[in-house]
Amino acid sequence: MKTRAAVAFEAKRPLEIVEVDLEGPRAGEVLIEIKATGICHTDAYTLDGLDSEGLFPSILGHEGAGVVVEVGPGVTSVAVGDHVIPLYTPECRQCKSCLSRKTNLCTSIRATQGKGLMPDGTSRFSYKGQAIAHYMGCSTFSNYTVLPEIAVAKIRKDAPFDKACYVGCGVTTGVGAVVNTAKVEPGANAVVFGLGGIGLNVIQGLKMVGADMIVGVDLNPDKEEWGRRFGMTHFVNPKEVSDVVAHLVELTGGGADYTFDCTGNTVVMRQALEACHRGWGESIVIGVAEAGKEIATRPFQLVTGRVWRGSAFGGARGRTDTPRIVDWYMDGKIEIDPMITHTFPLEDINKAFDLMHAGESIRSVVVF
Amino acid sequence: MKTRAAVAFEAKRPLEIVEVDLEGPRAGEVLIEIKATGICHTDAYTLDGLDSEGLFPSILGHEGAGVVVEVGPGVTSVAVGDHVIPLYTPECRQCKSCLSRKTNLCTSIRATQGKGLMPDGTSRFSYKGQAIAHYMGCSTFSNYTVLPEIAVAKIRKDAPFDKACYVGCGVTTGVGAVVNTAKVEPGANAVVFGLGGIGLNVIQGLKMVGADMIVGVDLNPDKEEWGRRFGMTHFVNPKEVSDVVAHLVELTGGGADYTFDCTGNTVVMRQALEACHRGWGESIVIGVAEAGKEIATRPFQLVTGRVWRGSAFGGARGRTDTPRIVDWYMDGKIEIDPMITHTFPLEDINKAFDLMHAGESIRSVVVF
Repeated sequence: MKTRAAVAFEAKRPLEIVEVDLEGPRAGEVLIEIKATGICHTDAYTLDGLDSEGLFPSILGHEGAGVVVEVGPGVTSVAVGDHVIPLYTPECRQCKSCLSRKTNLCTSIRATQGKGLMPDGTSRFSYKGQAIAHYMGCSTFSNYTVLPEIAVAKIRKDAPFDKACYVGCGVTTGVGAVVNTAKVEPGANAVVFGLGGIGLNVIQGLKMVGADMIVGVDLNPDKEEWGRRFGMTHFVNPKEVSDVVAHLVELTGGGADYTFDCTGNTVVMRQALEACHRGWGESIVIGVAEAGKEIATRPFQLVTGRVWRGSAFGGARGRTDTPRIVDWYMDGKIEIDPMITHTFPLEDINKAFDLMHAGESIRSVVVF
Repeated sequence: MKTRAAVAFEAKRPLEIVEVDLEGPRAGEVLIEIKATGICHTDAYTLDGLDSEGLFPSILGHEGAGVVVEVGPGVTSVAVGDHVIPLYTPECRQCKSCLSRKTNLCTSIRATQGKGLMPDGTSRFSYKGQAIAHYMGCSTFSNYTVLPEIAVAKIRKDAPFDKACYVGCGVTTGVGAVVNTAKVEPGANAVVFGLGGIGLNVIQGLKMVGADMIVGVDLNPDKEEWGRRFGMTHFVNPKEVSDVVAHLVELTGGGADYTFDCTGNTVVMRQALEACHRGWGESIVIGVAEAGKEIATRPFQLVTGRVWRGSAFGGARGRTDTPRIVDWYMDGKIEIDPMITHTFPLEDINKAFDLMHAGESIRSVVVF
C-alpha cells in the first residue's frame, strides 16, 4: 500500500512529505493507521544528526496513537479496530528483562529495532524501491505504520487520539518516573530540574501521588507559570541564586527526598544528586545527555546515603502501564490538554520542529 | 580516673602508650571497659594524615567491645555489667534520620562527634592537663572510654570480646551492605571488588542470603583462597583479563545483579557500576575514596537501569542491628574467627598498623 509520510532523507534537512510504499503486516505484526503523533526532542536529536546511531533515510516519530487496521498471522492480543499506542519500548513478557520483575526495558527486539528494522530483519517502508528505516520501532510520522504486536498498547476507545498520543512518550516518561522509578510517597519533597514537556509531567505525577513540596528549577522565568499550573509549589531560577544546590538544600529543609533531571545537562545532573537529602535522597536521571558527556560526583555523596538512578520511558511496561496512564488522563487525575500547545497537519510538521527549537511550544501534535 | 591508651599525638607518628586521664560519665553517658579492639584502615587513614578533618592529639579506634562499668544520670537502656559494642554511628531513635525509616545515619550527635567531642561539647580525655580528642565517638584504643548511651549496642554475654569487636565496624559494614543496603535476594549474581576485611564480609553476607554466583575481584592472587573460604564461587584477577568490565559482564551472563566496591578506588567504583546488569543492576560503594577524588560514568548507564548507591556502616542501625549480627556469628551463620589473623597486647598496637600496611593481615585485634 501507499501512505503519506514525513521522511527524513538526510540529517539536518527538513522532513519531506511524500508517498511511501508500505508492506502489510507479517506474522506477529499489526498495521496501524496513525491518527495523531507528538513531536519530541528525541526526533529532533536524530534529525539534527546528534545521534551517532541515527539512520537515514528514515521515518521518525515515536509518540503516536491510532487504530489497528490489519493484523498479521498469529496476532492474538489486539484486533482490527482496537485503539492503540505504538511502543518504542515493547513488552514481550517472555524475555529475561520482562521476567525479571525489575525493569521495563524489554530486550526481545532491541537488536533489530536499533538497526531500523522489524524483528525479522527487514523494513516495511520503501521509497522508489529503496528501503527506508523504521525509527524507534514506531515511525509515527507516517499515516500508516507496521509494528510488532508486542509493541502496541491497547487503550480505551473514548480517549482522543490527539491527546492520547502524548502518553506514547512524554506523559509516561514524566509521570512514570515518579510512580514507577522513584516510587514517590505522599508527603515527599521533590525538585524537578527543567520544566519542559517531561518536567511538567514529572510535576503533575508528583502532585498526583501527594508530594508536599514540588520545587521547579528552570533558567526561563516564563516556565514558572507553567510549573504552577501543574502543581509546582516553589520555583527557583538558578540565575537568581548564588549556589543552586545550597539554596535547594535550604529550601527543602536538608535536601530533597527525590530530584529529577529533565534537562540532559550533565552539570545539572550532578546538582540534582547533590540537592538530595543525606541518608535517603534519590536522584532520577531522565534527560538524555550529549554523546560523550559524563556525570561525576564525590563518592561521599553516595556513601552518605544519596542514590543515583535513571529512568527510561518512565519505568513503564508499555502494554501494561500506558493504558492505565490513559485512564488517569480520562479520569482527570492528570492533565494533557493544556500541554498540547500546537496542532498541525502533517504538511506543516517542520513548523513543529521550529517551535520546539525556539522553546515556544510545550508539545506540538500532528493530526493526520 | 587513669586509663592506659594508645595516643595519636601527631599525624604520621606511631601511637604512644601512656596513662591518660578520663573523666567519668555525665548525664546520658556510660563508662566502658574496652576488652578488645580491632585496627581498621580508617584508623590508619587518620593516623597517616590523609583525613583533612583528622584531629590530634586523639585516641583512635572505633571497632571495640567491652563492658559497662558505670552509667551517668538518666541512662536507662544499658546497665553496669552489660556487654556492649561502641557505635561510631549512634542510633538515637528520635532524630529526623532515625525516624525516617530510610537511613541508619543518625544525626543527633554528628556535629560534636566530628569535632572529637562528647555531645555536651567537651572531651573526657586529657593528658598532662591538655584535652585529647575522642575519635569517631568511640576511642577504643583506650582501656576505658566514655560514650553516649545512644552510641552503645548491648550484645549477648556469651560472645567473645576479641571476635565481637569486629562487628563494631568490619563485619557489619560488609554483611550489612548486603542485607540492609542492597537487600540481595536468594539466587542473585554478585561481584565484590577488593577482598580485604570488608570484601570478605560482603562475600559471607552474600553466601548467607543465598546468592548464586559470588565473584571476587582482586589484584592479589593470594586473596583467591581467602575469598573461597567465605563463599566466593569465582575469582577474577584484573591483571589477567584485557577488559575487566567486559569479562565480568560475560561471566555473569549480562552483568551482575549487585556489585560492591570495597577498594576506595574511584576507577574501580566505575567498573563496579558498569559491570551491573542493564535494567536493574545495583552497585554499592563501600570503600572510602581519597579526598578530592570523584566517580564518573556516562548517564546512559543509569538511564538504562543501573543504580549507584553507597553504604555506611552497612546500613545498620547500631543498637538494633549489631546485636543481631553478633547472634548470627554465635549461631554460625557467619564466621569471624578465621578473619582475626593477629592478636596483640596494647603495647604492640603499632605492629598491627605495620601488618595492615604490608597487606599481611585481614584483621588484627588488640586485647586489653
